[in-house]
Amino acid sequence: MSHQVETIQLQNRARLLVKCPDKPGIVSVLSSFLFNHNANIIESSQYSSDPENGTFFIRIEFHCDGLLEKSSQMENAFEEIAREYSMDYRFYYLHKRQRSAIFCSKELHCLHELLWEWQIGDLETEIALVISNHEDARSIVESYGIPFFYLPANKEIRKEVEAKQIQLMEEYGVELLILARYMQILTPEFVDHFENRIINIHHSFLPAFIGANPYERAHKRGVKLIGATSHYVTNELDEGPIIEQDVERVDHRNDVAALKKIGRQIERRVLTKAVKWHLENRIIVEGNKTIVFR
Amino acid sequence: MSHQVETIQLQNRARLLVKCPDKPGIVSVLSSFLFNHNANIIESSQYSSDPENGTFFIRIEFHCDGLLEKSSQMENAFEEIAREYSMDYRFYYLHKRQRSAIFCSKELHCLHELLWEWQIGDLETEIALVISNHEDARSIVESYGIPFFYLPANKEIRKEVEAKQIQLMEEYGVELLILARYMQILTPEFVDHFENRIINIHHSFLPAFIGANPYERAHKRGVKLIGATSHYVTNELDEGPIIEQDVERVDHRNDVAALKKIGRQIERRVLTKAVKWHLENRIIVEGNKTIVFR
Amino acid sequence: MSHQVETIQLQNRARLLVKCPDKPGIVSVLSSFLFNHNANIIESSQYSSDPENGTFFIRIEFHCDGLLEKSSQMENAFEEIAREYSMDYRFYYLHKRQRSAIFCSKELHCLHELLWEWQIGDLETEIALVISNHEDARSIVESYGIPFFYLPANKEIRKEVEAKQIQLMEEYGVELLILARYMQILTPEFVDHFENRIINIHHSFLPAFIGANPYERAHKRGVKLIGATSHYVTNELDEGPIIEQDVERVDHRNDVAALKKIGRQIERRVLTKAVKWHLENRIIVEGNKTIVFR
Amino acid sequence: MSHQVETIQLQNRARLLVKCPDKPGIVSVLSSFLFNHNANIIESSQYSSDPENGTFFIRIEFHCDGLLEKSSQMENAFEEIAREYSMDYRFYYLHKRQRSAIFCSKELHCLHELLWEWQIGDLETEIALVISNHEDARSIVESYGIPFFYLPANKEIRKEVEAKQIQLMEEYGVELLILARYMQILTPEFVDHFENRIINIHHSFLPAFIGANPYERAHKRGVKLIGATSHYVTNELDEGPIIEQDVERVDHRNDVAALKKIGRQIERRVLTKAVKWHLENRIIVEGNKTIVFR
Repeated sequence: MSHQVETIQLQNRARLLVKCPDKPGIVSVLSSFLFNHNANIIESSQYSSDPENGTFFIRIEFHCDGLLEKSSQMENAFEEIAREYSMDYRFYYLHKRQRSAIFCSKELHCLHELLWEWQIGDLETEIALVISNHEDARSIVESYGIPFFYLPANKEIRKEVEAKQIQLMEEYGVELLILARYMQILTPEFVDHFENRIINIHHSFLPAFIGANPYERAHKRGVKLIGATSHYVTNELDEGPIIEQDVERVDHRNDVAALKKIGRQIERRVLTKAVKWHLENRIIVEGNKTIVFR
Repeated sequence: MSHQVETIQLQNRARLLVKCPDKPGIVSVLSSFLFNHNANIIESSQYSSDPENGTFFIRIEFHCDGLLEKSSQMENAFEEIAREYSMDYRFYYLHKRQRSAIFCSKELHCLHELLWEWQIGDLETEIALVISNHEDARSIVESYGIPFFYLPANKEIRKEVEAKQIQLMEEYGVELLILARYMQILTPEFVDHFENRIINIHHSFLPAFIGANPYERAHKRGVKLIGATSHYVTNELDEGPIIEQDVERVDHRNDVAALKKIGRQIERRVLTKAVKWHLENRIIVEGNKTIVFR
Repeated sequence: MSHQVETIQLQNRARLLVKCPDKPGIVSVLSSFLFNHNANIIESSQYSSDPENGTFFIRIEFHCDGLLEKSSQMENAFEEIAREYSMDYRFYYLHKRQRSAIFCSKELHCLHELLWEWQIGDLETEIALVISNHEDARSIVESYGIPFFYLPANKEIRKEVEAKQIQLMEEYGVELLILARYMQILTPEFVDHFENRIINIHHSFLPAFIGANPYERAHKRGVKLIGATSHYVTNELDEGPIIEQDVERVDHRNDVAALKKIGRQIERRVLTKAVKWHLENRIIVEGNKTIVFR
Repeated sequence: MSHQVETIQLQNRARLLVKCPDKPGIVSVLSSFLFNHNANIIESSQYSSDPENGTFFIRIEFHCDGLLEKSSQMENAFEEIAREYSMDYRFYYLHKRQRSAIFCSKELHCLHELLWEWQIGDLETEIALVISNHEDARSIVESYGIPFFYLPANKEIRKEVEAKQIQLMEEYGVELLILARYMQILTPEFVDHFENRIINIHHSFLPAFIGANPYERAHKRGVKLIGATSHYVTNELDEGPIIEQDVERVDHRNDVAALKKIGRQIERRVLTKAVKWHLENRIIVEGNKTIVFR
């Protein structure tokens, strides 16, 4: 659906995401709250893990005239409801775009796709900077007017590099880190620092071919479909919550180079979808799984 | 998602479908109404054609202890809300399965699929009878214990045949008519008699190849994908509201016979999905289009 | 493409499958051989693992008037070529349909699909018998006039049961064994006895979720696509040469029961395709991989 | 499969495409011819419209040491065979890359994709120039070092503009014209001048929604899939031989703007595939249809 809204309207738009124990009356109390604040629901999606004693999740996008002036009062008023229903919740305001950083190495197809989608207005973000352990991406990144940082990285200097990266994230106010085929391991400390805020693209259909060289291993195994998986990064390698996956058909004629070529098409669209949904607050992480309100 | 619910629970389950002019507060009033009747929302999907002055649609599935005893009181109480918000609405009770009739001719793959899905419990219906203008399906239909009626049909005797068919629909209490590759034209009177209650499968990707011999025409045109379309029957040939469509890849080696063979796989899954969604009250017809809450 | 050929023509049709070290002139010598025997090539597909020092594979379907009378002379004449080029090869005659056996347990969707495809003439086989460790399938199988054998099976009596199965395979002249969700482990002896002649359907996208309960594990991992894999059975569990795979999209709303339901649709079409290709001699096993000339 | 071959090898690679009346012995004579010239077949695909009195098509890619020196002698020698079998044929030499021109207007997603695929080496072409009736694409095109020509176009000046375009095609030695969402009608004279050498992308699943505004009409009709079609341009609007088609799922929530956004993804991949196959000589036009040896 079209999520493009005129800038002037963005100021009056917000999203409310809620997670709480399921029990009767939640939708009623939430919708009444919004109605009483003269907010009109634009889109609403909900899910309950089990109507009896399960967990309830809801994403509501709403319009409210004069939202900028009313928002802090609304949030204060909401606290009482949240307490009563033991809600985890957050209001997201559409005029405040999330800031993101892209990390890449030498394979630039995912970076390229993200920049393209961002440039035509399909990604709700400011790309604040791009970081790479290679110089290859500099010219394309700078041609978009985005700062590019070359930070060589390897096992020996990992800690120092990550300290520098964290500093840059803070300096540029980055909320989302996108690993667009960034070929470096991250330390547990780094990952913990950005919990559920690092999206990676793995070039296989997880949980098949966890780890290195998935196309080589797919070729060796003789699979008839290859895939890619975008997921939040956790400290278990390639075991984080899966956001999106897709596959393409291959056959016996495809050598490893051909698989990589086909795979690039899958990787770039799977990563871009995951990033888009994250930025539109469509994803809720629950345990090691995601709820995606597409 | 699993829609299988124990029989004992079905008595306490219902769905409410509503269509009305969009304005603030609808979700609030609906959810409060259900909460006040001790009903718990199991699943809810909504759509607004336009948040400002558009039309609002919602499908709510709910659980309510003692529903059988409370339903008429609930429906009465709902009338006031419906009047205030100018709602078109209907309550569907899950213990009352819709009764359906399948119409077929000589091609039996769609019939076969419907019977299979029904037998394993995936279609919320009683198949009350099967009608055909050929005898081919009798043995398979009767092996399932379903009454089979052979009603020869052609242009000359159309009116009499349809009168007999309508009589059978009434006798067997049929609400949904499924045209599973039934190769006879229906009169406008017949179609009007069962508005939005006749589902057809057309063996092309509509609006391409409206009318007769779509596979022959697809072959002649050299398309690279062939498709099938399930839709509600209206009095414009193959122009009724589309419920579901799907396609498969074909190539220059496929002759017409091969297209038909591939097409059968598409037809049977597309028709079965459309029937399933209809029976689960997931479809709202709006003008010549459908809203499908999948 | 349409593989339906009139019975009268089948007697004059054959397929030649060849595997040999790649070197220049192979296609020339094969096509000249056929031309000199007045055989006309209907369809030809080839593949070389590497044009330099690789392995060459070809499948040729040809028509030859009076083939029945000429075939043994042709095969004799071919021996010289085969020797010169170190060819593994086999001629398959289309009037001699392979005989197959289906093994099943309680889940019958794959059996049902195979019987349907066979009945409408889309599988080039005689289904000689069906074997099951449960009685559930008896009535459907016998309604097609196919012998059904109930052979209870478990770990303790495995050897005796397999001895009985092998005896039945011989008695009925079975060349292909189809495991249509047959839930019993086979002994290495049994598997070796039917090398590359047992096709299994595994209910996951291999190599993900090897072994038991793949849908439960897919649900736990939160994958966004589920799949099925048909493969030749070897003595490494779920590690045999993959013939075909396919997937369907799922989401957070799908519980394990829903995954199983969606999975059934994938399993039946993936297994049926693999069986069809095997029967049409479209598959060549090379190491642990398959070449499939679709 | 990987079509990347080292430059040094390209000089020894060629493709032979043949079309002729089908009769026994063609493959034999072709493969013997190549063998006798010490050429080794790398890849071969064939198709016969009907083994009896049909038309036979074959595409052979071969390697031949010293091809540059031998090619004219080979072509001369081939003439005799061609005459005997009434062959239409052509040799394509891989070291001679086809030169192409891209025509675009204001929507640049297809241009962008073509440039990207070309830059990473996946398109066997020299992009000689880009022509547009708008200035929008200039900077991106020139950043790749490709000449950009702004030629304003409209109904009144069509003839003059096309004369200028033809002159540029000749000047730059262009063999393939790619209409990457070029929003101008071409005159019959222009089209005839480049028969089977102009590839267009139409933003619908042809033959549905021929002509203008296909997304608007798809939205109005309520289709559940939208598509795109690449085809050779003929003088029947959107009726030329189809090369490739693909679709994506949409639903009731997608307004026209959303359909366009989804459609852009389909258009760019469908056009790129068609162009790629054309450049690799994988397409044979036969009547109003294409044979594509993928």
